[in-house]
Amino acid sequence: MFSEIITVGDEILRGDILNGNAKWLARRLTALGVTVRRITSVGDDIEEIKSALREALRRNNSYIFITGGLGPTRDDMTMEAVAKALSRKLVLSEEGLRWVREKYKRAKERGLIEDESMTPSRLKMAMIPEGATPIYNPLGAATSAKLEVGGTKIFVLPGVPAEMVAIFESIEPEIKGVRAYHKRLKVHTRDESGIAHIIDEVYEKYGVKVASYPKIKAGEDFWVELRLSSDDRDMLKSSFMFLKQQLETRGIKVEELAEDKVEDEWEVEVTSSPRSARGSHRKP
Amino acid sequence: MFSEIITVGDEILRGDILNGNAKWLARRLTALGVTVRRITSVGDDIEEIKSALREALRRNNSYIFITGGLGPTRDDMTMEAVAKALSRKLVLSEEGLRWVREKYKRAKERGLIEDESMTPSRLKMAMIPEGATPIYNPLGAATSAKLEVGGTKIFVLPGVPAEMVAIFESIEPEIKGVRAYHKRLKVHTRDESGIAHIIDEVYEKYGVKVASYPKIKAGEDFWVELRLSSDDRDMLKSSFMFLKQQLETRGIKVEELAEDKVEDEWEVEVTSSPRSARGSHRKP
Repeated sequence: MFSEIITVGDEILRGDILNGNAKWLARRLTALGVTVRRITSVGDDIEEIKSALREALRRNNSYIFITGGLGPTRDDMTMEAVAKALSRKLVLSEEGLRWVREKYKRAKERGLIEDESMTPSRLKMAMIPEGATPIYNPLGAATSAKLEVGGTKIFVLPGVPAEMVAIFESIEPEIKGVRAYHKRLKVHTRDESGIAHIIDEVYEKYGVKVASYPKIKAGEDFWVELRLSSDDRDMLKSSFMFLKQQLETRGIKVEELAEDKVEDEWEVEVTSSPRSARGSHRKP
Repeated sequence: MFSEIITVGDEILRGDILNGNAKWLARRLTALGVTVRRITSVGDDIEEIKSALREALRRNNSYIFITGGLGPTRDDMTMEAVAKALSRKLVLSEEGLRWVREKYKRAKERGLIEDESMTPSRLKMAMIPEGATPIYNPLGAATSAKLEVGGTKIFVLPGVPAEMVAIFESIEPEIKGVRAYHKRLKVHTRDESGIAHIIDEVYEKYGVKVASYPKIKAGEDFWVELRLSSDDRDMLKSSFMFLKQQLETRGIKVEELAEDKVEDEWEVEVTSSPRSARGSHRKP
């Protein structure tokens, strides 16, 4: 089960913000057993979005997630680009229109806006590619959408983190993955190159993939994280025991690491908290 | 001046870590006046790295930055993939070899390792594509490299943040950009869709690009950031004055924002501090 993520927005390409949307989606898809093969970030540019999507479609993914560029302003052009990439028309979704109307109606009732009329920029948020299915956005006015092309399911999600998270969770049941297993090992060595041949041996003996991540933390001793992954649980176990024993017989101390806790030099919580609910001003 | 960034590493595609390397490079390139057109993240996979580089080369970039996968273990395969993508041989750099030798010699002198001999996995860190120029890595053993293909300069940098930062700064003088100007405006409105037509007017009148970023922060009122950008300073100024006046005549309060301070829901400092110097165990 392969998938790709395409994030749209100049702010990523300018390095103004970290791509937390991509990280959040990648982590969730991985947990679902879907292998994320590529993450592509393009700007607010129809041609760029178009070509990124067409290239991803050529790679026969089961899923493609596009996030960003669904708002009311002219720099929001993802739906139009998706339609163009698939040589389809951009059409008004009746359902989407009903949702958008309702949002602004309630926003006016709450005194958040003065005028609830369907201006072109509000209508824009109900436009989706022909043949696509609109997806309700519980936190914003911009309509999300899904469509299937060949064997690939394409999901077009907002870039507003809270909205993206909420919509992803509503479509999650549609996403089927293959369970993969992994084990992580903390190896107390200062010299990654000194254990490389053992990693080779594990790979050749068991065909299990071993990734190596050297770590350093102020005040802590150097260490190397080894990450074994396989879809064969028994094979993973045996290769893990072999690796552990190979290291220990060389007098290298090792500890098994918990699966969930991952070291990240830039780790920050990616949440759907109000703080990250950029654009929830559209919230009715 | 267009450029692309390719980051290599399964940890990004699994969503284990944020792509801080891409953000750091994008921000620095933007500051140098180089437009980052695309950021692509691929895994530790020769075919994926190869195709990502070949695709980027077809888009006629002035610069391509590839970061990650330069270490001693089998999951570090970027140099080999770059060589394959360009149909070149992977060769031992005499200069690189001298550097690697020296690193391990000093590491042994300092008692960090027991054996300084040039094992295959250490030699690996002195291998670069034929015709490439090795770049000294002041913080690690993995040799960096640059090469030119057609009009495109390709820089192959380590994924270890501190190493990447140090090497980028050593090559920065080679990077030429075109100064672009921008102004940022804080617009006190709850309704992004209500100002979309003014943004259109600015674009049609001045041809200046206006990006719109709705913002919300707990305890603060909703607001929208508008970002005008142009390479024509005077045009930018006039369009900015026009936009400001259009909003104010509609009773919408606006404030000019400083250029440097950017809102980021996931903002964290990307530094070259020891804490982020993953892999500096190779440091002699």
